[in-house]
Amino acid sequence: MQRLRHYMPILQWGRSYTRESFSNDMIAAVIVTIMLIPQSLAYAMLAGLPPEAGIYASIAPILLYAVFGTSRALAVGPVAVVSLLTASAVGQVAEQGTAGYAVAALTLAFLSGGFLVILGILRLGFLANFLSHPVIAGFITASGILIATSQLKHILGVSAHGHTLPEMLGSLLSHLGQINIWTLLIGVAATAFLFWVRKGMKPFLLSKGLTPKLADVLTKAGPVAAVFVTTVLVWMTGLSDHGVKIVGAVPQSLPPLTMPGLDPSLVKSLLLPAILLSIIGFVESISVAQTLAAKKRQRIDPDQELIGLGAANLGAAFTGGYPVTGGFARSVVNFDAGAETPAAGAFTAIGLAIAAVALTPLIYYLPAATLAATIIVAVLSLVDFSMLGKTWRYSKADFIAVMATILLTLTMGVEVGVASGVIVSVMLHLYKTSRPHVAEVGQVPGTQHFRNINRHDVETHPSVLSLRVDESLYFVNARVLEDLILSRVTDGCAIRHVILMFSAVNAVDFSALEALEDLNDRLRDMGVKLHLSEVKGPVMDKLRATHLISHLTGQIFLSQYDAWETVRPKPTIAV
Amino acid sequence: MQRLRHYMPILQWGRSYTRESFSNDMIAAVIVTIMLIPQSLAYAMLAGLPPEAGIYASIAPILLYAVFGTSRALAVGPVAVVSLLTASAVGQVAEQGTAGYAVAALTLAFLSGGFLVILGILRLGFLANFLSHPVIAGFITASGILIATSQLKHILGVSAHGHTLPEMLGSLLSHLGQINIWTLLIGVAATAFLFWVRKGMKPFLLSKGLTPKLADVLTKAGPVAAVFVTTVLVWMTGLSDHGVKIVGAVPQSLPPLTMPGLDPSLVKSLLLPAILLSIIGFVESISVAQTLAAKKRQRIDPDQELIGLGAANLGAAFTGGYPVTGGFARSVVNFDAGAETPAAGAFTAIGLAIAAVALTPLIYYLPAATLAATIIVAVLSLVDFSMLGKTWRYSKADFIAVMATILLTLTMGVEVGVASGVIVSVMLHLYKTSRPHVAEVGQVPGTQHFRNINRHDVETHPSVLSLRVDESLYFVNARVLEDLILSRVTDGCAIRHVILMFSAVNAVDFSALEALEDLNDRLRDMGVKLHLSEVKGPVMDKLRATHLISHLTGQIFLSQYDAWETVRPKPTIAV
Repeated sequence: MQRLRHYMPILQWGRSYTRESFSNDMIAAVIVTIMLIPQSLAYAMLAGLPPEAGIYASIAPILLYAVFGTSRALAVGPVAVVSLLTASAVGQVAEQGTAGYAVAALTLAFLSGGFLVILGILRLGFLANFLSHPVIAGFITASGILIATSQLKHILGVSAHGHTLPEMLGSLLSHLGQINIWTLLIGVAATAFLFWVRKGMKPFLLSKGLTPKLADVLTKAGPVAAVFVTTVLVWMTGLSDHGVKIVGAVPQSLPPLTMPGLDPSLVKSLLLPAILLSIIGFVESISVAQTLAAKKRQRIDPDQELIGLGAANLGAAFTGGYPVTGGFARSVVNFDAGAETPAAGAFTAIGLAIAAVALTPLIYYLPAATLAATIIVAVLSLVDFSMLGKTWRYSKADFIAVMATILLTLTMGVEVGVASGVIVSVMLHLYKTSRPHVAEVGQVPGTQHFRNINRHDVETHPSVLSLRVDESLYFVNARVLEDLILSRVTDGCAIRHVILMFSAVNAVDFSALEALEDLNDRLRDMGVKLHLSEVKGPVMDKLRATHLISHLTGQIFLSQYDAWETVRPKPTIAV
Repeated sequence: MQRLRHYMPILQWGRSYTRESFSNDMIAAVIVTIMLIPQSLAYAMLAGLPPEAGIYASIAPILLYAVFGTSRALAVGPVAVVSLLTASAVGQVAEQGTAGYAVAALTLAFLSGGFLVILGILRLGFLANFLSHPVIAGFITASGILIATSQLKHILGVSAHGHTLPEMLGSLLSHLGQINIWTLLIGVAATAFLFWVRKGMKPFLLSKGLTPKLADVLTKAGPVAAVFVTTVLVWMTGLSDHGVKIVGAVPQSLPPLTMPGLDPSLVKSLLLPAILLSIIGFVESISVAQTLAAKKRQRIDPDQELIGLGAANLGAAFTGGYPVTGGFARSVVNFDAGAETPAAGAFTAIGLAIAAVALTPLIYYLPAATLAATIIVAVLSLVDFSMLGKTWRYSKADFIAVMATILLTLTMGVEVGVASGVIVSVMLHLYKTSRPHVAEVGQVPGTQHFRNINRHDVETHPSVLSLRVDESLYFVNARVLEDLILSRVTDGCAIRHVILMFSAVNAVDFSALEALEDLNDRLRDMGVKLHLSEVKGPVMDKLRATHLISHLTGQIFLSQYDAWETVRPKPTIAV
């Protein structure tokens, strides 16, 4: 039972669910539902899927996450970046608008869900750490630009395509002649209105004397107003006969039971994108969940989150959806609206199910331009170049990683972009550790503390070379250290003792062990003793049984101070 | 001039060349030439090239290395592993025996030479460090097995093919019916004889009363004897008419002037193999050079070695050869024979040139089985599984890397094998650093030294949590540390001060900086102060201007002792 409760957090919070929690969750659900209807339609369009897929993807996944997830406030469903990744991955195996495209999207959700659940069971949540924060920030910014650009065609009313910025811009430019003036007017007006809703509406309403609470709710309903007004406008004026693209007929139905395609060649070509999408989705989701949990001093279990998100994606795969994850905007709204438990998500799911059955005829005349405006306004808030400045000031290596991620995402597509970001980060890290910082240290007078001779006023002796090695020793830097020490000893001919201060050596791998054995032999031939000091427990445990220790010409000291006191020549004391 | 001398070491040692050095170099050259003739023919066969390519590849490259290389004893030419890599790479773009095959081999040498020279000029020799010693050992062992297996067809006299162990064995088994009995007899006899030459001949000759020096020279000449005897045998008995494959007509010529093919599609498909081959060849060469240089207290400059090897490969590309590198066997023979300067190599080249012009008709009847025996006996000495045992005892991560390299090289081919070895090593290293060891430390009584409370008898106080972080902080482990500290603080409610002892933190990247800022904020909310101690110079330089330092709730101390003395509650002193 304890075990089951671990894997299904609902059994914990469900037992103490109160009437008060219920009413708070209910209010949050209503607000989130109103916000989600246009957003779900818009993201489905971004993913290249029919609008109902966005609503379906918000129903079963929310329910499943409520059962398996650990975050109290996270709202799972279609999000911008994952929708873009879906369009990019599925676009490579099927044509938009075909049945194969929708099936491939289900397969992608299925593979992603399976992968996340497996990671969760194997407790491999730490893999997400390979995406460094600067890389994520760069990727999100570049994705925001890509997404906004991809929606310009709906605002202009032209047909354009492409998965990278140059492709999209080129395609847009070559189709500029086809601009539909009515679409453009609706699109620009909707975009301008939504920007105002986001920035200027709340202060405006407050200045008109509304209560903050009411102003808040009205602001949240802004996108719904845009949807309503433009739909009615197109319906009354018959602009859809003048080239304004509309959503059209959407089936009135609860989420259907669907089967992802499991054809081996389809699975093979979607597997890598599914893994990438899963990791990116997970990273986005967990960072939102942790931010919100921290505000209420709750804890998130990353491995259980993997299972929760995985279950949500499996749910999407079998109910006509597409890959989902925990979204920032919807989760924050849920949290701010007072959601207390995952039950709020369940109520949202019910609200959306009602919308799917009852409201879809009402959006027949909804213009695609309005949805595009919704997306553009939402994603432009993701675009944030400040990470470039911050990393430039702090660390050039991080800056290079961000820059590479942004440029490659924009020019080579989302998958190449994020994969390159990870590879560049790892390579730069290895490069840094391949040239270890080695400081010659001496005793800080009057203490037992030893610091760099170039930075501090310290005591040394020409016959003793004390070196603090500032890196774990492993294959990438094993030889470098050996070369460095040998050339130092060759230059300083008075040296009789070399003390390697291992306080910063956290591991010694086999290649480094061999290099140290070699160093010991060479120093012995030169009449120099090799000592080690401050070797840490875990490192000493491994070294104990080796040839290095049994043949070490010098000793191993607990502290650098002991080593120094033992080997330095003592001043002769006059009796 | 100084600069030129740096890039052409010949200008240094050439000025002080003496008559005595000349005679020593001459003797070494004669011995090496005798050994190289059968070896060059055999390795060319292994690479799938006509026998003369092996001799040509030993002439210009040796001369060029003599000009640009830094090792006094290294002998450059065809070697087993590089020949195998050549066969694998070129076999993917052309059919053996065609003109395209030979041209592709030239192209491979050209690309490899160019790549090495560029690395050398950019001083990127450290890249070779990414191949850890266990991975190299595993790769060499697996290559030895692959090479020996690939030669079995010549011993059996059947036609078989394949680039992996299962392919080769399967192909051999399915052709077993075609065994040529005469070939088999010659092959087995030659192999047995050569094994005896290697293991038993020298003791035998010594027991017969020969001087060690003479016994040594005769042992070196063993392969030549095998070549001579089997050639004469086939010539006299006419066995070549009974299915015994022979070398046949070899052009009598100095190395011809050739042009590598530079067709873009050829270059594109050979580029990656060329890079891999260059790095493996360089690693083999530099480790031989360093071993020999250490014996005479000479120094090897890795970056200059890249230029020397690169020049040798460019030379091979334009004189009918194929990729070359510094070989272990030939270099050791050269060294033991008393070679003093690279001039010994030049004399060897002259000897081989004479052989190419004058001796090739004599090997018309040389059986391929004899060459195969030469290769098998040479490479089986490379097979050494002891690395598996050594790494198993010392470090499981290294063991996994060796095992993966051996298994993947045998089953998936040389390129996949070595690439996987590198990737597995890097991943395991990152995995280890992703879960940093964090020790709670206390004061070793009577000293200013702080060690792990679980391993040493130390003094602590419930209100102070001193943690020594045993890893550089970067994106892979940034969050892990934060989680760990927060859960420790949540468990120990008396804690008022957290001191992070940064003696083992060699770098803090941007992701980790953000995690620390976050930690500082969260601890502040819990009423706990965060202090840092023993922050190293390079780390402090970067942290100085950050939000973390300006908002740190605690202080930064030079030593852990200072920190402890400052923050621990003092016992009240009774007056």
